[in-house]
Amino acid sequence: MSEIPLDRKTPAGALQTVDRALLVLLAFERTRPDWGVTEVAAEFGWDTSVAQRLLSTLAGRGFLVSDPATRRYRIGPAVLRLGRLWERSGSLELLAAPVLEELGRVTGDTVLFCLPDSFHMRCVAAVEGESGPLRYYPLVGELYPAHAGATAKSFYAFLPDEQRHRLFRGRPMARFTDRTVTDPDELERELVQVRAQGYAWTVGEYDAGIATVAVPVFLGREPYGSLSLGGAKERFTDGPEGRLDALRKAARLLEKRLTHPPQRTRKPRAPQS
Amino acid sequence: MSEIPLDRKTPAGALQTVDRALLVLLAFERTRPDWGVTEVAAEFGWDTSVAQRLLSTLAGRGFLVSDPATRRYRIGPAVLRLGRLWERSGSLELLAAPVLEELGRVTGDTVLFCLPDSFHMRCVAAVEGESGPLRYYPLVGELYPAHAGATAKSFYAFLPDEQRHRLFRGRPMARFTDRTVTDPDELERELVQVRAQGYAWTVGEYDAGIATVAVPVFLGREPYGSLSLGGAKERFTDGPEGRLDALRKAARLLEKRLTHPPQRTRKPRAPQS
Repeated sequence: MSEIPLDRKTPAGALQTVDRALLVLLAFERTRPDWGVTEVAAEFGWDTSVAQRLLSTLAGRGFLVSDPATRRYRIGPAVLRLGRLWERSGSLELLAAPVLEELGRVTGDTVLFCLPDSFHMRCVAAVEGESGPLRYYPLVGELYPAHAGATAKSFYAFLPDEQRHRLFRGRPMARFTDRTVTDPDELERELVQVRAQGYAWTVGEYDAGIATVAVPVFLGREPYGSLSLGGAKERFTDGPEGRLDALRKAARLLEKRLTHPPQRTRKPRAPQS
Repeated sequence: MSEIPLDRKTPAGALQTVDRALLVLLAFERTRPDWGVTEVAAEFGWDTSVAQRLLSTLAGRGFLVSDPATRRYRIGPAVLRLGRLWERSGSLELLAAPVLEELGRVTGDTVLFCLPDSFHMRCVAAVEGESGPLRYYPLVGELYPAHAGATAKSFYAFLPDEQRHRLFRGRPMARFTDRTVTDPDELERELVQVRAQGYAWTVGEYDAGIATVAVPVFLGREPYGSLSLGGAKERFTDGPEGRLDALRKAARLLEKRLTHPPQRTRKPRAPQS
């Protein structure tokens, strides 16, 4: 996610030392997984003693760990604990809701935001279309199989080849409708095509009467989930093209909110709990 | 993980404001996913204005998000980014290595620490036994199927029933040896038994000549991975009992290092990168 630049100036009203510690945490990246004290000092233009105290304070609560052999720091296990909490915290729905609502308002379709969960996609946020509910059970929490329908295909197509092949190899592919693809070679050809065109479009692969168009949602360079528009196939007689711009714009906005969440512009004068 | 008490006193040499911000982050738990300003102030005995500035500084970098409707805070998406980095960061091996080495020294067996990965267990750290390598390929990175062998069973047995049933339902169960269990009902009976006795013990389910005993590794109340001892079955003629104490002790130590990583006791006088 190094392509998303961070403004390193501490925002007005924020605590500078805390903000610096958070910047240090955010400096750890996949391409730069460990840092030494003098490197941190040089990167941010701080005294070595400042960098040392920030790093050891972060290590003191397990947000970093130092390698006893090299004295370099890496991300620590406290992050693991918080990371496991994140998806259950409600923040995802909170951040996604305004994007999904706007997309639903513009298109009139049902909007789904889904994340992968053991060879399925799990719906984590949804908005019903103007033509009424797609199904008679709650959309949120529902699981969709990895091999059927645009919602899943638009995510799995963007996994690294090796990981995708391992996931799909030797799997049973349940048939839901006469359009469900159950041959792994044919599925792989379709996923390669989805990847090339940047979106997935399916009609009746999972639900016979439903058409769906979906795009991946990325965190940095990694696929994180999928955003999709679905509805009765009669609503999609012109295919997916007319919806792609709105869908892509919403996916970019969702990515932005997931990496740089919006802030209240002013602190409330009388803080309330 | 609320059963692991945090010492709230800022350690000597640490930056107090930063340490307080980290304590606030660690206060977010599954059973307490959102906090208001006055609640944080009351919990830690701080002025409301201190709590407000800490919370808004954390929100400013996306570590928290505030719900515009309730003004309460939840874990934010910056945690997501760091969480995805954690398992690739090398910290896991760094923290696990001393525990695995000691367990290997005491038992002479091959020691594996494995985490779940799409209906498999992935070996993330390993120590070879005194009787030489179990296999002629690297242990770390290897995937073990979810239904065969103690390493996998000692993890999957401890998943919540609903989640386990969903994972195992309708799966193809490959047969590796004549001891591999491929009937889902029989497998479920075995997993219930593993859960009741607290460990898994298998002989030749995955590798014909290998015996393995394994226990789950928990983070708080949630199963996170498994720690196992394996070797040629001739080494295990007395069954698993003689190894259980050492294995359980090592698993508890691993859990402790994952939640409270060890610290260097003194800052180096001349910080080095």
